[in-house]
Amino acid sequence: MNNPIVGIYAFPLEAYTSDFRGKPTLHAIGGVLMQAATRHAEERGFGYSAMNEQNRAWVLSRLAIEMRRFPINDHQIRVRTWVPEINRLFTERCFSLNDSAGNHIGDARSLWAAIDLETRKPTVITDMPGFDRFICREPSAIENVRKIPPIKENCTVESFTVKYSDLDINGHLNSIKYIEHLSDTFPVEMYQQQDVRRFEICYTAEGRYGAQLDILKKEDHDGVFVMEIKNSEKTICSARVSWGINR
Amino acid sequence: MNNPIVGIYAFPLEAYTSDFRGKPTLHAIGGVLMQAATRHAEERGFGYSAMNEQNRAWVLSRLAIEMRRFPINDHQIRVRTWVPEINRLFTERCFSLNDSAGNHIGDARSLWAAIDLETRKPTVITDMPGFDRFICREPSAIENVRKIPPIKENCTVESFTVKYSDLDINGHLNSIKYIEHLSDTFPVEMYQQQDVRRFEICYTAEGRYGAQLDILKKEDHDGVFVMEIKNSEKTICSARVSWGINR
Repeated sequence: MNNPIVGIYAFPLEAYTSDFRGKPTLHAIGGVLMQAATRHAEERGFGYSAMNEQNRAWVLSRLAIEMRRFPINDHQIRVRTWVPEINRLFTERCFSLNDSAGNHIGDARSLWAAIDLETRKPTVITDMPGFDRFICREPSAIENVRKIPPIKENCTVESFTVKYSDLDINGHLNSIKYIEHLSDTFPVEMYQQQDVRRFEICYTAEGRYGAQLDILKKEDHDGVFVMEIKNSEKTICSARVSWGINR
Repeated sequence: MNNPIVGIYAFPLEAYTSDFRGKPTLHAIGGVLMQAATRHAEERGFGYSAMNEQNRAWVLSRLAIEMRRFPINDHQIRVRTWVPEINRLFTERCFSLNDSAGNHIGDARSLWAAIDLETRKPTVITDMPGFDRFICREPSAIENVRKIPPIKENCTVESFTVKYSDLDINGHLNSIKYIEHLSDTFPVEMYQQQDVRRFEICYTAEGRYGAQLDILKKEDHDGVFVMEIKNSEKTICSARVSWGINR
């Protein structure tokens, strides 16, 4: 328990994990954030194992990623992560991303709930002993997820069925797979000229195995897309994807 | 260039990268093999960068993976990799997999061609200076990919379009994504009771962006499936997937 409050982790970026441009995909970056979060929490006694013993699990509720620059053919990404705030039902986690030369390339912030594995309802976080020792009041460099307006029109651009590879250890659609499915609705021609500058997602319900899901997409204003993933009954996530010229 | 002939690499396994059973997926294992191969070659002067300077790229031609046991909720996988043989147009690469406690959990072997990036044809490998210094005559613990019979019936079980996330740095369907798409045709009920014991794949043509691909599947004999991925003209890969009871 002598770990510093802020965690710093390096992840290799291999030719194999990059997209056709030699840049890491947004879901690869999301994966790296999840790994940094997992390690930071695990090393400090409030990770997957400790939560599992209490029959609880961390569930990602919101995530915003802002990239200043996507490194090309770099060999490493470095992540600083810390917990700036704990509320009764939610805890925030911030991230700052550097390339292998130490340049600041992006930031992210996330909101997590600790659900009870049986009821699937959020539990009180503030009762976790010692958790508050790891709070670092450094604010995030980026804005929180802003309200994402519901899509009222029928703007389905893609449908998919939740399969084996989509599932996480809780048996639901993996938080990062959402990002991959959303990213895949944009044509490669767009990736040739632009990068996703800011990505925001709110997870509102669980994607279950075998569910047929629709992806809705609508250009809100120039280069900014509002998106939803829906099952037959309701919206399971909403997202906003903001594009900008390649840097 | 003072690297040992055999490379040994450790990769973290995170809760985030495991399947609903807490086991690494076969495509995650394939990814780890590709990363070990990339690092081993790069460190010894015949990797992606050196090949790119010669306007060539390594292309995976065949891969066989045999798993004795899939680790559950382990935190690390260790890969030994070496090149047992170089022929005029192909080079073989072997792998041996250990869990974090050092137990032998699986093996793999692969065949690679070095294609010319313009003509997309295989080039002569034996002319690469110094490459033969890294040959280790240790044979693979497992059998090579055996001949996979063509599927003559119309056994299409799934179709998909090659999207952004499917592409590798050469702009073609990523070798490991084939494994993910093939794995997804099996229901989770099968993964609950069984594991893939042996997986074999032959890559015969490139999957291009936007192509509509069909997956064909046929149970050859008890628990052994022959599979193909086809575009409108031809078979781009064939595979054999052999299942066995969970260990």
